[in-house]
Amino acid sequence: MDELRLCGRQARPRTAVPVGPLSFGESFVVIAGPCSVESEAQLMAAARAVKEAGAHALRGGAFKPRTSPYSFQGLGLAALKILDKARRETGLPIVTEVLDPRDVPWVSEFADMIQIGARNSQNFSLLREAGRGPRPVLLKRGMFSTLNEWLSSAEYILSAGNPNVVLCERGIRTFEAYTRNTLDLSAVPAVRELSHLPVIVDPSHGTGRASLIESMSLAATAAGADGLMIETHPHPEQALSDGDQSLSPAGFGVLMRKIRVLRGCWEGLA
Amino acid sequence: MDELRLCGRQARPRTAVPVGPLSFGESFVVIAGPCSVESEAQLMAAARAVKEAGAHALRGGAFKPRTSPYSFQGLGLAALKILDKARRETGLPIVTEVLDPRDVPWVSEFADMIQIGARNSQNFSLLREAGRGPRPVLLKRGMFSTLNEWLSSAEYILSAGNPNVVLCERGIRTFEAYTRNTLDLSAVPAVRELSHLPVIVDPSHGTGRASLIESMSLAATAAGADGLMIETHPHPEQALSDGDQSLSPAGFGVLMRKIRVLRGCWEGLA
Amino acid sequence: MDELRLCGRQARPRTAVPVGPLSFGESFVVIAGPCSVESEAQLMAAARAVKEAGAHALRGGAFKPRTSPYSFQGLGLAALKILDKARRETGLPIVTEVLDPRDVPWVSEFADMIQIGARNSQNFSLLREAGRGPRPVLLKRGMFSTLNEWLSSAEYILSAGNPNVVLCERGIRTFEAYTRNTLDLSAVPAVRELSHLPVIVDPSHGTGRASLIESMSLAATAAGADGLMIETHPHPEQALSDGDQSLSPAGFGVLMRKIRVLRGCWEGLA
Amino acid sequence: MDELRLCGRQARPRTAVPVGPLSFGESFVVIAGPCSVESEAQLMAAARAVKEAGAHALRGGAFKPRTSPYSFQGLGLAALKILDKARRETGLPIVTEVLDPRDVPWVSEFADMIQIGARNSQNFSLLREAGRGPRPVLLKRGMFSTLNEWLSSAEYILSAGNPNVVLCERGIRTFEAYTRNTLDLSAVPAVRELSHLPVIVDPSHGTGRASLIESMSLAATAAGADGLMIETHPHPEQALSDGDQSLSPAGFGVLMRKIRVLRGCWEGLA
Repeated sequence: MDELRLCGRQARPRTAVPVGPLSFGESFVVIAGPCSVESEAQLMAAARAVKEAGAHALRGGAFKPRTSPYSFQGLGLAALKILDKARRETGLPIVTEVLDPRDVPWVSEFADMIQIGARNSQNFSLLREAGRGPRPVLLKRGMFSTLNEWLSSAEYILSAGNPNVVLCERGIRTFEAYTRNTLDLSAVPAVRELSHLPVIVDPSHGTGRASLIESMSLAATAAGADGLMIETHPHPEQALSDGDQSLSPAGFGVLMRKIRVLRGCWEGLA
Repeated sequence: MDELRLCGRQARPRTAVPVGPLSFGESFVVIAGPCSVESEAQLMAAARAVKEAGAHALRGGAFKPRTSPYSFQGLGLAALKILDKARRETGLPIVTEVLDPRDVPWVSEFADMIQIGARNSQNFSLLREAGRGPRPVLLKRGMFSTLNEWLSSAEYILSAGNPNVVLCERGIRTFEAYTRNTLDLSAVPAVRELSHLPVIVDPSHGTGRASLIESMSLAATAAGADGLMIETHPHPEQALSDGDQSLSPAGFGVLMRKIRVLRGCWEGLA
Repeated sequence: MDELRLCGRQARPRTAVPVGPLSFGESFVVIAGPCSVESEAQLMAAARAVKEAGAHALRGGAFKPRTSPYSFQGLGLAALKILDKARRETGLPIVTEVLDPRDVPWVSEFADMIQIGARNSQNFSLLREAGRGPRPVLLKRGMFSTLNEWLSSAEYILSAGNPNVVLCERGIRTFEAYTRNTLDLSAVPAVRELSHLPVIVDPSHGTGRASLIESMSLAATAAGADGLMIETHPHPEQALSDGDQSLSPAGFGVLMRKIRVLRGCWEGLA
Repeated sequence: MDELRLCGRQARPRTAVPVGPLSFGESFVVIAGPCSVESEAQLMAAARAVKEAGAHALRGGAFKPRTSPYSFQGLGLAALKILDKARRETGLPIVTEVLDPRDVPWVSEFADMIQIGARNSQNFSLLREAGRGPRPVLLKRGMFSTLNEWLSSAEYILSAGNPNVVLCERGIRTFEAYTRNTLDLSAVPAVRELSHLPVIVDPSHGTGRASLIESMSLAATAAGADGLMIETHPHPEQALSDGDQSLSPAGFGVLMRKIRVLRGCWEGLA
């Protein structure tokens, strides 16, 4: 294990990370919303739906890391303005991904939480810039990252001055092709052993299949995750990206009801 | 996908697999006990402890698949006699692994359920022999098996005449070295989509770390697994094999209490 | 590393393994022939073609390990009789796979070398039976085997009394799907560091693509492999198994000419 | 496969990429030098040694992507000035890695070729910036990249206006731990089938073990690679990074002599 001076568990047992009115690590947080912001109508519909179902924060991509340069790359600033409008209407804090270190300062004006995605989990320039920024960071595990590498990436952010990091397990790449990635839920209790940072789970990228998201969300909750990140879209079949792994508003509503029941049970267990 | 004529979901929605007084797929089944039968004293102590904590079946290895020929290979027939004694005393059905097709007939005299381990998941001679045998089969997923390969291995058993197969997810091999394997809990709902066979989870091999077993057992339960297989040892620190991933009787007792609470909750969700 | 008393390099620097008139480890050996023996006409055509092109031994499967029970499983005894006929006509020693420990004694009557395939690389009953048998063993690396596990499997054979083991790298399973497996050529020099056993390479299974076999055969030769195993079929497009990764007689002839040139060069390097 | 409009083989059969006096794709190019520039004395000694042994270009890291923020991060501008001095003395073109899109323009003043490393293989901002820059780009395969993803990353560079990309296979991450990565030499002929870009091989990162580099360099050459990238250090045991996988000047000299012999042979084969 590389040295984890600041994010290691020896530093403290648990941390709470405040994001707007929320506190990751203290209460269970569900972030929901579409993969990409595609239009104002789409994002506002998604925002209202997830708010109504009980989500605590809104996600939506303005800059999309796409394998091919010819795929939809996101709406950029226009998306951020739409997210801002959704926040004003729903009160939900905004989580959005940054791909370029130059974008951290100005995107921080719009976002309540900056996401660093799996492909950038060892983009050390971006990690350092996020560490110098004013916003809490949602740090996804790389699809190829060991636990030690993931936590060392968090250490880059903390050591640059920003103590507010939430980890997000989103599946690792394996030989299994039925699922888009293999969701490694053992990372939740393992991170607890190694670090004081909160850890949430993204079963949407972790499975790549809408039909598996509810089960994996319940499993993540029972494993002790501090929250979930769920892709939802008003019309998954029309999504410009990740439609196969997006829940409809109705599916998300069912999931939220089950999560609430399970959390009630889980708190009794602990 | 290879053809799954008999174990595919198109054949029927769900199956119940009877093992002694138990019915996998109808009620939640916990199999517990040591990796290896090491002595009568050890096995009887383990059997009493898991019985008292509420386990439904007893596991114990008589033939051990060990990487090195110089490692403890199991007590063979002597172990089976000890398992038989434990069954008579506790009433718990016995689950034990077979490594060689020639052993299926006579081991079936002692065991209530035959286990085929991860290393033999594509040992087609053994699968066929188990398919001709009288006992239900616990078929572990190979550490390198895709879902399709795992289910095709079940198809070998069913097509040889034995309809009683229970699948067991036990982790796949990945790059992550913190855990012994990566437990793929998405296999639980994925198998549900593809097959009517019951599926249980082995978090002991799936993680290789006693400290992670409770969380992963709760997660498997919430994911909808039909049961669990847990390594327990009266004195894990003295075990001849797999001590690092074995629960003590006390730890297993705590786990069983939590599982019961969670199952109560889970049945309310469905 | 597990203990490698007999196959470890500390026991001796290099071993020669005699197979009929051949000596693996002393001269470069090319084993060629079809995946499966499909008919006398097919096998005899293949045998004559590979003999003419300069192959040293003939492969042909009588028992096929197939993912699905509904796929072609091999002709069994009939295939062995055809292989025997081909040996008598061409003089090429025969290499054929055994799947079941019960088959080792009688298949040894027909084969000059027994192959243990990737799926059985940790079938310890089969390894032990091959270790008690009279024939040299071609031990393929499991698609999930570490070097230590592979060599420990060889140790099972040696410790059961049979010193004649040749290792065969045939690719490991990874996330890359362009190739059927990922051929790990670093295993060739790595095995040299760890063991005295000869090591050959199977680029047919290692890549799964006929178009890549020539390049990977040359690479294996340059890496210092003791030989190659190449699937060839008189009519690859009609093969009952593995047609996509089989060379035609013409393609195999070109390959053999290049291998001879490269071997001449390589011997000058060493 | 994602669309490869510009780097796909349908666009043209082969490309030559000029770097100073060199032409990747037309002649075999060996890039050598230390992982990191540690001091002027170290780099100059390395540069002279590799020049004398016959290397064609000099590598040396000024910015190091390190898992931990507390590891040596490179000398930055000071390293670039030292590299510039080495170029003036030896005439070798300079290859150096860039981690941050903001550094592409000014590092291009010092470097003859910009390297994008495995961890940044899907850092799309960096890829685009390199695509807008004046220097040819050495694009390493990500440790988790499929061939399609790797080539799509090249497509980002080409589609931003820079046609001069050389691909570098450097090993992928697998379960095998004996080697640091698993060098996938089948990527060499596979890339040939899919793209017109030159492809070289880095056996230093690909194996992580100095003892395996010579064999894998010969294998890569025989597989048809357009060149090699080899870590060499005047005193590997004192290196600040990657000492275990660095050749000494003597070892590199032996390797270069063997490569020259093999290339002579290989050109006769084609």
